[in-house]
Amino acid sequence: MVMSCGACSFCKKQNEQHCSSVIWTYNSIDLDGTCTYGGYSDLMVANEKFVVRIPENLPLEGAAPLLCAGITVYSPMSHFKMTEPGKHLGVVGLGGLGHMAVKFGKAFGLKVTVISTSPNKREEALKNLRADAFLISKDMDAIKGAAHSMDYIIDTVSAPHDLDRLMTLLAPDGRLVLVGVPPEPFEIKPFSLIAGRRSVSGSNIGGIQETQEMLDFCGQKNITSTIEKISVDYLNIAMDRLSKADVKYRFVVDLETIERA
Amino acid sequence: MVMSCGACSFCKKQNEQHCSSVIWTYNSIDLDGTCTYGGYSDLMVANEKFVVRIPENLPLEGAAPLLCAGITVYSPMSHFKMTEPGKHLGVVGLGGLGHMAVKFGKAFGLKVTVISTSPNKREEALKNLRADAFLISKDMDAIKGAAHSMDYIIDTVSAPHDLDRLMTLLAPDGRLVLVGVPPEPFEIKPFSLIAGRRSVSGSNIGGIQETQEMLDFCGQKNITSTIEKISVDYLNIAMDRLSKADVKYRFVVDLETIERA
Repeated sequence: MVMSCGACSFCKKQNEQHCSSVIWTYNSIDLDGTCTYGGYSDLMVANEKFVVRIPENLPLEGAAPLLCAGITVYSPMSHFKMTEPGKHLGVVGLGGLGHMAVKFGKAFGLKVTVISTSPNKREEALKNLRADAFLISKDMDAIKGAAHSMDYIIDTVSAPHDLDRLMTLLAPDGRLVLVGVPPEPFEIKPFSLIAGRRSVSGSNIGGIQETQEMLDFCGQKNITSTIEKISVDYLNIAMDRLSKADVKYRFVVDLETIERA
Repeated sequence: MVMSCGACSFCKKQNEQHCSSVIWTYNSIDLDGTCTYGGYSDLMVANEKFVVRIPENLPLEGAAPLLCAGITVYSPMSHFKMTEPGKHLGVVGLGGLGHMAVKFGKAFGLKVTVISTSPNKREEALKNLRADAFLISKDMDAIKGAAHSMDYIIDTVSAPHDLDRLMTLLAPDGRLVLVGVPPEPFEIKPFSLIAGRRSVSGSNIGGIQETQEMLDFCGQKNITSTIEKISVDYLNIAMDRLSKADVKYRFVVDLETIERA
């Protein structure tokens, strides 16, 4: 976000992301009538309320994706209090959002299980990201073995998938937060919610104050996104690789290379 | 409930309804190996922890359905803090559960809108139960007119219905709690949750301490279920009428009539 009305009930409660007049960082119409270009801009003029402070100990390239992937998972974890040390967090999908959810989960002192369709992500999850466990979502024995064991689930998957199966992993009073955007409606069995007072919620980025809080937390805990920094002339190759999900975990375009491009 | 293990994490937090060893009031196997018969019993032996105190000012017949319909809607309203005076509650379905949700909503100082498929429930909702508004769930203009206006929704309907349409009524941070049990899975669009951080939860009765709290609240506010008291020899007729949803709002069997039957 680079602007919101500042006057509505959401803006007044620091939930600018829910303001109906919000101007998004990219592909929105800015106050001067031009289109916003987000990370493809080399300069952007913004109201000071929408400018955040990057902690000095964080490298800028690793901090940049915190301003979307980071806050997108941090915000629901903070808002819904999915932060109690010793509780069990399931992270569904190990991409840009998922790997940040693992990092935050470990920083909050949670037990973290990565849930993925790809067996070849096991080593990455357990060794590189220090998750505590790894579960293949299509392995019904493994799913049954973990039934009712998780207090929280962050679901980052934007492909169609079986949310109701994931609900069976939740303990009573558990909550699944959807931050991915599957293209089709998903199905839930009524008893998957009613038995054990379970919840499914959604979340979309976070407020500006909360974004600063997230950045300060990352500064204290030395958390950044795992990234691959690219020059401007690599952009088309990067887009091809993105379409194959071939990136760990975010490309960051170094705009200082723009004159070389 | 008439018994639970008393030792698990749920029992220790007064959520006996989530205990995996719970014994239900009816159609469960009791400690002595016999079946429980609930409201068809003239006597039941229960542990004192599962006996509640009916406030003296409440008539027993109007208080009896509080121990299922009452607590089933009171518990999520209390647990999820759907009680802030001036907030807007939607109640979907005006039966045994729904009419209690309207009564509790008004007692908490909420604005209450009844949402129903039946235009002929309008007068009952507005005049007899003092709801503030009435909405036909199939009237798309009315649904659109009320978009994003409700802070909470209690959905008491056990027939198949469109939950995603109801989600459009919720304001950001709104929550729909399902207490009815539709026979089939329901569909939700991802963005119905993600936009505005909305939640869908389920709930099933409540804990014993919370049940006593609900009864005490009913005593203070003079709230009972609207009932039709019947004698034992009327039972078969009552069952026929129940199958046609012809009751306002609960039949209560007067077991003192059992010798006359």
